[in-house]
Amino acid sequence: MNNFDFYNPTHIVFGQGRIAELDRLVPAQARVLVLYGGGSAKKTGTLDEVKAALGAREVHEFGGIEPNPTYETLMRAVELARREKLDFLLAVGGGSVIDGTKFVAAAIGYGAGDPWQILLDHGASVTQAVPFGAVLTLPATGSEMNAGSVITRAEFQAKLFFNSALVYPKFSVLDPTKTYTLPARQVANGVVDAFVHTVEQYLTYPVDAMVQDRFAEGLLQTLIELGPKVLAEPENYSVRANLMWAATQALNGLIGAGVPQDWATHMVGHELTALHGIDHAQTLAIVLPSMLQVRRASKRAKLLQYATRVWHIDSGSDDERIDAAIEQTRAFFESLGVKTRLSDYSVARGDLDRVIEQLSAHGMTAIGEHRDVTPAVSREVLELSL
Amino acid sequence: MNNFDFYNPTHIVFGQGRIAELDRLVPAQARVLVLYGGGSAKKTGTLDEVKAALGAREVHEFGGIEPNPTYETLMRAVELARREKLDFLLAVGGGSVIDGTKFVAAAIGYGAGDPWQILLDHGASVTQAVPFGAVLTLPATGSEMNAGSVITRAEFQAKLFFNSALVYPKFSVLDPTKTYTLPARQVANGVVDAFVHTVEQYLTYPVDAMVQDRFAEGLLQTLIELGPKVLAEPENYSVRANLMWAATQALNGLIGAGVPQDWATHMVGHELTALHGIDHAQTLAIVLPSMLQVRRASKRAKLLQYATRVWHIDSGSDDERIDAAIEQTRAFFESLGVKTRLSDYSVARGDLDRVIEQLSAHGMTAIGEHRDVTPAVSREVLELSL
Repeated sequence: MNNFDFYNPTHIVFGQGRIAELDRLVPAQARVLVLYGGGSAKKTGTLDEVKAALGAREVHEFGGIEPNPTYETLMRAVELARREKLDFLLAVGGGSVIDGTKFVAAAIGYGAGDPWQILLDHGASVTQAVPFGAVLTLPATGSEMNAGSVITRAEFQAKLFFNSALVYPKFSVLDPTKTYTLPARQVANGVVDAFVHTVEQYLTYPVDAMVQDRFAEGLLQTLIELGPKVLAEPENYSVRANLMWAATQALNGLIGAGVPQDWATHMVGHELTALHGIDHAQTLAIVLPSMLQVRRASKRAKLLQYATRVWHIDSGSDDERIDAAIEQTRAFFESLGVKTRLSDYSVARGDLDRVIEQLSAHGMTAIGEHRDVTPAVSREVLELSL
Repeated sequence: MNNFDFYNPTHIVFGQGRIAELDRLVPAQARVLVLYGGGSAKKTGTLDEVKAALGAREVHEFGGIEPNPTYETLMRAVELARREKLDFLLAVGGGSVIDGTKFVAAAIGYGAGDPWQILLDHGASVTQAVPFGAVLTLPATGSEMNAGSVITRAEFQAKLFFNSALVYPKFSVLDPTKTYTLPARQVANGVVDAFVHTVEQYLTYPVDAMVQDRFAEGLLQTLIELGPKVLAEPENYSVRANLMWAATQALNGLIGAGVPQDWATHMVGHELTALHGIDHAQTLAIVLPSMLQVRRASKRAKLLQYATRVWHIDSGSDDERIDAAIEQTRAFFESLGVKTRLSDYSVARGDLDRVIEQLSAHGMTAIGEHRDVTPAVSREVLELSL
């Protein structure tokens, strides 16, 4: 096992009916900015429920945070918060809204210079942040219990990340019933996202991290079992609750502590979203099977463990078992309705040069757990994904 | 899944060579009280390493905290800390030293009245605590990453617990190499302790908590795999590291979030320690197999899941599989050298009345996940453990 630090102070408030507790969770004197997305929080009544719970506090609203939240949009929230001297943020939504809120939290009091620098230095220049909480409505990204954020700058077609221990949510309310009305596409994307988050921290090379491996395998098995059920029975509380908690555990630092991490699939996927507007989870479903195939030699030991423990593939040669595990991964994504080929999204061979250029422009020239995923390897992965 | 809150802000600093980072972890102006146990921390050099890392800070020492730390001993540490106006505590040891330090932390500034009240109200009266960190030398109890503590009052032969979110360690340094020199008995006890902690939160009744079940099963499988290895290869870093992290995860709130919990084995075991001086883990090894046998009807569904997923027992009738799982549990403890019968510890049938009296005296008359473990049930369990 590698040496590691683990620190995660987010208070999780899990279960049906818990939004009412915001009155206890948000400081009594807070001047609150509630941030949300495209309007579903308003339509479903969750926003009203949140505002009712906040009682007599001064509450301002900022809606319209888009999937793949943009710097351009978020800077308007920063200006609102500065102008109105708001001192507590409350994200109501999924990973995009929470990621966006993290950026706003760090940007409000950011010193001289453009807060975009936070993305360019991946969080190193963050020295303070306005405190914030979250009400999660879409299980997928784990942003509700981690200190990471991914922000897009539309004018540059750039999608970059930052991390800072200063942007852990103070609390996150996870009420599974709030996910009942999600569109099937978002639900399926959420399952894929949580699955690939787990894979990025698990499917590398062995370092004898027995607990982390067992936990990761437990999450993958849970997601495989839940995926079809959540689409078939959208109002099954137990299914929704388990999916929500699995997605949180997939990216709260626990399974990644003390182990190598990959993230090459995410980095290549980000460029596909930035250039072609493909949903984040869809990019992961496109890239992951090819990424595993191209890098099967360096991932061999863990691929075999994955085949055995996650997919229960016990027969065939080692190479056949690896092939079967990769194919079952692809089939799982497709079974959820998430297509796994670039051609499914009208991306053709001729578009790949630009993807590789952007990867290089963003410094992603030596990624993966061995830093051996060069632009040439990424190209090979993308070609295999056509 | 049941509704739950999860909050655990302890910063884990894991790996070889990390004690030196105490200089960064302990506030620079702190007046420190270092608490330790029976002298092994001194003998092995860990205490010197700790003091060297603390540099120029004013450091006082308090040694002699015993296994099953007593109120009587700890109140002397409280008096020292009050007299010298010490404002940061550092526990160097295992669960007993850390549990004791939690009590000292809460007792130093405790208002009027005897701090024993903290145990009588199980932590409800704790409103402040002196901050503290830990350097763990014995993986077992999980105290390094939780807010619980068990304290014995020798004059009353009472062993009681308290919990308070105010006594999470600020940080815990987990260096697996510091466990190399532990006596085999303590190592075996630690494996049993972590195993039974997991079972207390897992082996109840199903509430569709898929992630918690998978995580618990992962910990149990890990402990079963590690147990023999850690005794055979005491200086195997990988084995020590995995055991350390498994024991921490077994009782940091994670696997117990959103699920019913039992703890009857612990409550009965505490009385055996208080009356007969049997090691804590030994009491668990004595009580657990009989507890599972006596309560097999109400635990039936989870016992079958335990048989299948943890022990991989796939043949036989349901009742035969449950019997086999309980017998394998007993055999596992015995294989570590931890005896599982009261007669192994010279406790006879005639001693049981007093155990049951003390259980009742401490309010443990309706324990377990269904509150149906009455003194009569506890007696049946103890009789089966003779």
